[in-house]
Amino acid sequence: MMGILDNYNDFHKIKYMTLKQKQQFAKEIRRFLIEKVSKTGGHLASNLGVVELTLSLFSVLDLDRDKLIWDVGHQSYVHKILTGRKDKFDTLRQFGGISGFPKYCESIYDFFETGHSSTSISAALGMARARDLKNEKHEVVAVIGDGALTGGMALEALNDAGYTKTKIIIILNDNQMSIAKNVGGMSRYLNRIRIDPKYNKFKDDVEAALKKIPNIGKGMAKYLERVKNGIKKMLVPGMFFEDMGIKYLGPIDGHNMKDLIEVLSKAKNINEPVIIHIITKKGKGYQFAEKNPGKFHGIGPFDCSNGELCSDSCDTYSGAFGEELVKIAEKNKDVVAITAAMRDGTGLKEFARRYPKRFFDVGIAEQHAVTLAAGMAKEGLKPIFAVYSTFLQRAYDQVLHDVCLQKLPVIFAIDRAGIVGHDGETHQGVFDLSYLTQMPNMTIMSPKCICELKYMLKWAVQQKYPIAIRYPRGGDSGEVKLSPLEGFKPGKWEFICGEGDIAVIAQGKMVENAVLARNKLLDLGVKVKVISACFVKPIDELMLNELVQNNMKIVTIEDNIKHGGLGSSILEYVSTLDKNVKVSILGFRDEFIPHGKLDILYKLHGLDVEGIVNSILKLVK
Amino acid sequence: MMGILDNYNDFHKIKYMTLKQKQQFAKEIRRFLIEKVSKTGGHLASNLGVVELTLSLFSVLDLDRDKLIWDVGHQSYVHKILTGRKDKFDTLRQFGGISGFPKYCESIYDFFETGHSSTSISAALGMARARDLKNEKHEVVAVIGDGALTGGMALEALNDAGYTKTKIIIILNDNQMSIAKNVGGMSRYLNRIRIDPKYNKFKDDVEAALKKIPNIGKGMAKYLERVKNGIKKMLVPGMFFEDMGIKYLGPIDGHNMKDLIEVLSKAKNINEPVIIHIITKKGKGYQFAEKNPGKFHGIGPFDCSNGELCSDSCDTYSGAFGEELVKIAEKNKDVVAITAAMRDGTGLKEFARRYPKRFFDVGIAEQHAVTLAAGMAKEGLKPIFAVYSTFLQRAYDQVLHDVCLQKLPVIFAIDRAGIVGHDGETHQGVFDLSYLTQMPNMTIMSPKCICELKYMLKWAVQQKYPIAIRYPRGGDSGEVKLSPLEGFKPGKWEFICGEGDIAVIAQGKMVENAVLARNKLLDLGVKVKVISACFVKPIDELMLNELVQNNMKIVTIEDNIKHGGLGSSILEYVSTLDKNVKVSILGFRDEFIPHGKLDILYKLHGLDVEGIVNSILKLVK
Repeated sequence: MMGILDNYNDFHKIKYMTLKQKQQFAKEIRRFLIEKVSKTGGHLASNLGVVELTLSLFSVLDLDRDKLIWDVGHQSYVHKILTGRKDKFDTLRQFGGISGFPKYCESIYDFFETGHSSTSISAALGMARARDLKNEKHEVVAVIGDGALTGGMALEALNDAGYTKTKIIIILNDNQMSIAKNVGGMSRYLNRIRIDPKYNKFKDDVEAALKKIPNIGKGMAKYLERVKNGIKKMLVPGMFFEDMGIKYLGPIDGHNMKDLIEVLSKAKNINEPVIIHIITKKGKGYQFAEKNPGKFHGIGPFDCSNGELCSDSCDTYSGAFGEELVKIAEKNKDVVAITAAMRDGTGLKEFARRYPKRFFDVGIAEQHAVTLAAGMAKEGLKPIFAVYSTFLQRAYDQVLHDVCLQKLPVIFAIDRAGIVGHDGETHQGVFDLSYLTQMPNMTIMSPKCICELKYMLKWAVQQKYPIAIRYPRGGDSGEVKLSPLEGFKPGKWEFICGEGDIAVIAQGKMVENAVLARNKLLDLGVKVKVISACFVKPIDELMLNELVQNNMKIVTIEDNIKHGGLGSSILEYVSTLDKNVKVSILGFRDEFIPHGKLDILYKLHGLDVEGIVNSILKLVK
Repeated sequence: MMGILDNYNDFHKIKYMTLKQKQQFAKEIRRFLIEKVSKTGGHLASNLGVVELTLSLFSVLDLDRDKLIWDVGHQSYVHKILTGRKDKFDTLRQFGGISGFPKYCESIYDFFETGHSSTSISAALGMARARDLKNEKHEVVAVIGDGALTGGMALEALNDAGYTKTKIIIILNDNQMSIAKNVGGMSRYLNRIRIDPKYNKFKDDVEAALKKIPNIGKGMAKYLERVKNGIKKMLVPGMFFEDMGIKYLGPIDGHNMKDLIEVLSKAKNINEPVIIHIITKKGKGYQFAEKNPGKFHGIGPFDCSNGELCSDSCDTYSGAFGEELVKIAEKNKDVVAITAAMRDGTGLKEFARRYPKRFFDVGIAEQHAVTLAAGMAKEGLKPIFAVYSTFLQRAYDQVLHDVCLQKLPVIFAIDRAGIVGHDGETHQGVFDLSYLTQMPNMTIMSPKCICELKYMLKWAVQQKYPIAIRYPRGGDSGEVKLSPLEGFKPGKWEFICGEGDIAVIAQGKMVENAVLARNKLLDLGVKVKVISACFVKPIDELMLNELVQNNMKIVTIEDNIKHGGLGSSILEYVSTLDKNVKVSILGFRDEFIPHGKLDILYKLHGLDVEGIVNSILKLVK
């Protein structure tokens, strides 16, 4: 039997579906999502959680005029299905295919591009103010998770919205999760509203009591009337938001489309900022995802029938980091670990289990995480902030001022540095070497293999100043056998192999490619020397002096943008020497890097083995 | 008669002073502050507001064990007076003298260095967690203004503190101001607690009513008892904080030391996070500052007797920006202006007066400001975010993702770029060229004179992509007459003057110095050509090709760090050409730049005329 989805081609028709049809449609969309994402991988659980919400929004809003913004954007798959991209889901997150995040180039209904958390209320407010200044009339809706609400900028935006009273509709999609279970006072507060039977009992009791109060004279009655009104106001569950100046509606069952459509229609008629608190279940409708929403948040291809991942897990940098940190922490009681809602992704699961008192999940709050670490370091602890490269961008100022200025011994374990692949533009970690090398007092290391990460970590814990160790997603390719360094001296690089008058200085993952390129070049009769820049800052000036003295040509390779990173630092230093030698920088070009397989992306930017070989051959000519 | 301050030399004695002595001491400290700051300039109003608070904190805390963190830190003068720096106040904010912010190198009692807003709760939480893990017992206190509480990271920290229940004491110093009057839902909420007579009347009424409720049977009594307790809890004025999990005490008169000492002592005995809400008056005790706290926030030397500034105001970049923007906005209704609590400092006062509906002060919330601007630009407005260079650091990620990724036509009017002088390390704007040049799709301009800023602004408003215009504090030196460019073409530089085989490529304020250096060099028989890099991104590749073709030596000058900025971009480009020429980069070294007069700081980094001349002479040898 053909379903609704099979014939679906126009979102304008959703308005005219019956509730029953919508419920059937929701079922079909869920099946579609599970089937498609099981093949491509992607963000499954969050999308399963918003099927009814998305259908309800499309029922109430007129997206030819109204604007809809998905915070973070990884829950926009249903939106994509509904807005003409159903048939492209086989290409989800593949190079050239549709993105896992909203993209204006895919659809004009992707009104604002997102990727990092907590931006939607700010963007919505901006759009709403534009609407008001242009005397237009339409809704602007932001859908934000309870996790994203712990991000400071979301609260900055609430503060602004509540004050100026610009009309926007905020949907607080409360699933009690970020990627992992939510933390924070805000989360506990929402939880109290949501489920605390005492709270609801109290509310019922008060209302009953107020009704029963006998008639006790005029003066008393006046008092009590005032008391009653006051109490009623105070019993609104979302006083926190009302205090900020935002009208609160809820909590509402986020899988009940009847209620959702009703509350959304009501919100449209309120001429001030409104927050609608809806309760959803992450992974809803797929038993394996409901049971383990964390695993199904962002997942690789899996078997629909049992929820098992297709590919075997292999050794990863994240895993090695977590493992080593547990060992270090056993001996060194001052070691503590901090994460911004990324316990499992950064490899801290076992650490959290073993040392719960020394583990701190601060929510999606990178700024706070960094300065918290600074405070800890100031008082003699050895904090390690494990964070994805792209998310550390949120704390540029805090790293610079609160850590580097005071030269505090905080360790930044920067995971997912370089390109990450399928998540695309907003998740590539290709800026960190550039923004971290700017910071006085910062030391930056980059391991060339998993095992070296462990040694670096061990070494870093012994030092008394800020250290960033940045390493890629995944593990070693295994195509080259590299021996890890054990002892480190700040700014001392390692000679890896080769000879000749071209020095290839590579960092981290690029050392593998450099060695492979060297082997190929040898076959072509071109000799190069490979050096691992295990320190990206400080650089090895002694070695550079020697290379320059010997008139070597220098090629630098980094999985970072070309500008302002390792190559740039080397070039700048060489430019201060009397002798001028040729320095060629290989790295990512000055553009945002889309989603796709790593191999394709490296090739695209000339950082695959072949690309490196070609660049060096050009230099020889 | 000798006062208490004259003989003061040990803060441990404050504990033993009588209330009367403390009051007398407060008076003397105020007099001292006014007298000293009138000579050196500095942050006066905020310090006058915390005299009683600081004395009370010193009365209750044991700073040999307890830790005290001043948010932003510009209100730490009284703390400095009390901790051994009284006699150094003549050197306040002067090169080599004491800083206007907490500095550990000045005193071990400056427990955590601050400068940017909203970091103190995070740092305090870090210190408190270190204390708990080390099984130590002492207080950790953060003093934060109501303005700083609008910064997202402060809310991130509250969220964390309220959840984990780590004991810290937060003093919310509520003076209803950031630098200017506070905005935001939070501010309005605090205001309601503070002054709303209805609110207090309601509280009194309810309490009276509850007392009067007659005995009405057992069942009813049970109901009412529960109602009573519930109401009492709900009547705590700081429910917002209590909802987050933070115990609220207040509001308290922040100039009444008896009350302050009492509430501080009480807070010490509460074993969970506490927020003490105190009400103070910015500028307290100096009539001119009370009347105009904004003017006396950060002020230059002034006449004590009448509060008048000593130096005449001169034409500034900020002034020219504000003036021109008003003109542009008159013709172009899409132009809107955004500030993060810096209306006057950024020159937007007149704009705000003329176009109140197109002016948005979002509070100390740079992250939100940028994404708000992105939302506005997406919907066809032309937002200009006027911000100090150092504060834009807070929004690195938002500029990159929310503006540049979507290529939205937001204009960043970046004031106080380069060095700012007396505010020191945390306020120098020397990183922006480095972090902005990293961002794909970003165009960066830098005017060589005030008048050129106006033309740049006019031009930028016509373009359809992100543009940053960065300009220095103050105005033109007037030592050189420079003619502004009017028409601009992205990446097209301007030839200023000179000839010879050395090309000096300077940006912004450095063009003046380059021209002066060129004149001096001419006297010494060395000829140089001066070029203004009005675009820092993109760079003028055609011009560079020509210079390289002609074997010119290139010297670059920027009032930015050397790494990753203009010079670096030029060097990187030249390294891709077949011909190699010498490129020398002049800029700030890789270190934090302390407070002091601009002249001294330029000289220190070789960016004064003499330094430039010497660098070029070296190149010629």
